[in-house]
Amino acid sequence: MSLAFSRAVRTSNASQFNSAGLRTLLWRNAPISLRALSSLAGGLADIDPSKLQFTRTGKPKTLPESSTLKFGHTFTDHMLTIPWTQEAGWGAPHIQPYGPLAMEPSSTVLHYAQTIFEGMKAYTDPEGNIRMFRPDMNMKRMNTSAHRIALPTFNGDALLELIKQLIRIDKHWIPSEPGHSLYVRPTLIGTQKAIGVSPPNEALLFVILSPVGLYYPTGFKPIALYGTTEYVRAAPGGTGAFKLGVNYAPGILPQRHAAAQGYSQNLWLHGPEHYLTEVGTMNMFVVFHKEGGGYELVTPPLDGMILPGITRDSVLTLAREHASGVKPVAGLPTDITVSERPVTMSEVKEASESGRLAELFGAGTAAIISPVDRIGYLGEDVHIPVGKDGMGPLSRHIWTELVGRQTGKIPSDWSIVI
Amino acid sequence: MSLAFSRAVRTSNASQFNSAGLRTLLWRNAPISLRALSSLAGGLADIDPSKLQFTRTGKPKTLPESSTLKFGHTFTDHMLTIPWTQEAGWGAPHIQPYGPLAMEPSSTVLHYAQTIFEGMKAYTDPEGNIRMFRPDMNMKRMNTSAHRIALPTFNGDALLELIKQLIRIDKHWIPSEPGHSLYVRPTLIGTQKAIGVSPPNEALLFVILSPVGLYYPTGFKPIALYGTTEYVRAAPGGTGAFKLGVNYAPGILPQRHAAAQGYSQNLWLHGPEHYLTEVGTMNMFVVFHKEGGGYELVTPPLDGMILPGITRDSVLTLAREHASGVKPVAGLPTDITVSERPVTMSEVKEASESGRLAELFGAGTAAIISPVDRIGYLGEDVHIPVGKDGMGPLSRHIWTELVGRQTGKIPSDWSIVI
Repeated sequence: MSLAFSRAVRTSNASQFNSAGLRTLLWRNAPISLRALSSLAGGLADIDPSKLQFTRTGKPKTLPESSTLKFGHTFTDHMLTIPWTQEAGWGAPHIQPYGPLAMEPSSTVLHYAQTIFEGMKAYTDPEGNIRMFRPDMNMKRMNTSAHRIALPTFNGDALLELIKQLIRIDKHWIPSEPGHSLYVRPTLIGTQKAIGVSPPNEALLFVILSPVGLYYPTGFKPIALYGTTEYVRAAPGGTGAFKLGVNYAPGILPQRHAAAQGYSQNLWLHGPEHYLTEVGTMNMFVVFHKEGGGYELVTPPLDGMILPGITRDSVLTLAREHASGVKPVAGLPTDITVSERPVTMSEVKEASESGRLAELFGAGTAAIISPVDRIGYLGEDVHIPVGKDGMGPLSRHIWTELVGRQTGKIPSDWSIVI
Repeated sequence: MSLAFSRAVRTSNASQFNSAGLRTLLWRNAPISLRALSSLAGGLADIDPSKLQFTRTGKPKTLPESSTLKFGHTFTDHMLTIPWTQEAGWGAPHIQPYGPLAMEPSSTVLHYAQTIFEGMKAYTDPEGNIRMFRPDMNMKRMNTSAHRIALPTFNGDALLELIKQLIRIDKHWIPSEPGHSLYVRPTLIGTQKAIGVSPPNEALLFVILSPVGLYYPTGFKPIALYGTTEYVRAAPGGTGAFKLGVNYAPGILPQRHAAAQGYSQNLWLHGPEHYLTEVGTMNMFVVFHKEGGGYELVTPPLDGMILPGITRDSVLTLAREHASGVKPVAGLPTDITVSERPVTMSEVKEASESGRLAELFGAGTAAIISPVDRIGYLGEDVHIPVGKDGMGPLSRHIWTELVGRQTGKIPSDWSIVI
């Protein structure tokens, strides 16, 4: 049966990939060629969806109640794995039952943190289609991340095609409740079986899927941040601009410290000027009232320390297209200046005290928008205005627009039907 | 047979651990209590050697020719594993055949780099005893590292006892050639089966052994360093002072860049002053001629960016005890000032030009001492004096003393017979 399925999928997949129509669509959604980053100089094999093997699980799991879902704790029936070797390049992709990976104890990922990942979501739209949101951006960033720690790069379109195939197979796992989704986690690890610190001669790319509920099941709940100056998330010349595993483990202890003081996340402050950089594992936006009316929407620039978040980019793009009149966002005030510029805690504190601060929020794939109501800073709390619904004057409408586009309620070429 | 062995080891091990004499010896070798760091507040189980289970391999591997050994590529017949859970603490240690670990794809180590490790060596001395070098320091540092990324801490004496047991079982793997050793790699990883960024609720400690040959099989060969200003290894508020996996993967690309320009390792320079910090994955020493004669031995201070290396500490201690007359080192010049202080590339460059530079070397477990003959810095080479044997006036004698103590030729309480 497994063999029969394998054949069926190969055939259907190959034909899809050979379909000119679909290919065009793919390229349109990935305007910047990912092939440019691909390390195929030596004529090694790239990821090839036509080589997909499929082994269907013999023991499908019981679907969980959506109300019991806890972020990242439940995984679907299948996973995608794609091996890579220095000699041959990318091997045959395999969709197989979700289960343990056999890893040599010498695997370099276990010693030297050779891991990168992405976070994406798939939604069911009102018509029952499955949608993904700007997945080409994730494929591009994953290649950039891979290059930063000498892991193999790949054709992002090809990986995306395989991810779609995996989602289609496990599509019954996507919760149908509004705002629920399937979290998609592609991960690439170095699996060299020798403990030298070097580019690995073996690697493994795998993709797992996790059904997730609402981030704020009972409505928006603003969070309190601890302005962190004792620890850094990133530094100039470091890895903060890449989605690497190494940026995450070191943040757990500072998060514990913040929690012990009654704050839920870290606000990572940088340098003697205490520049605001990121919030926990999210990008960060602050909104000021401009003198004479209107708003300034500010986020720190991509200076090498800031993750180029896809939600970050979407918020900026929405706000810019709205402000310029290209594509108005319903409800959003018209006078908005969009700035990518450094912002310090002094500026935020002064604005809070003078009434010039309008709101402050985190932005990322998991929470989408995460409003903030106070920042613990040098022993006192800086208060941030928050509306009755937990949101602010800009984030309220940006969130509605983003979620509308993600779930297909608002037409957008950012959302693709798979 | 496996069961019989298991019983035998349990018995012998329990009796050793209960022997007052051996326990005293252990404590003497670990003057700073490691228990202080242990996270046993909730009454959870610590690592307990008396619970050791042993499964002997049914397929012992063929011992490799020592001349073919490549660092970290060959592993012995057995490994030690110790599981941990948030609910129960440390579980029963198990020495078992070396082989793959079954890891859930959601294991947090694969996503968020929750890994720490140590590097130690075991030697055979001229009398046939097996020796380790200051292993209490590794146990202490491993606990400090674990705490930094919210992994569980443990009783270092207990882990060391189990490591000794593992080495005794695979002692025929220690190459007998002079300077050869068994590299010991304890690793601790987060294995929580859920992709939230948080302290893991499951972890696994494992220890693997790798026979290694001479680092410089054909005599000392000085290396060329690339003074790296584009990338950082560490930053204030970061993790440079801890032996975490996250400090290693990001260094591979800079190392490639250095290699592409004809240099073998990075010299990590920090800040606008270009402070020298570390060399590749080693600590760093520079030696100046003092005005009026004698030498100054300088290494950067432990300011939070420098790994507290055990070879680093040993070099400093040897030199200080020599300089103060407490314990003279054969051949070492008497007039040595030992400094833990910042040192900049300007100072090194000026000293190179004026003839005040005596030598510069890396120090670490793998290479012990690694002399340097030039540094590529801002487009030109800074030349470092090197003796005919590849060593400098201090490193030559420090190396001899260190290796003498490690291999038991020179009596020292740093070296323990296991």
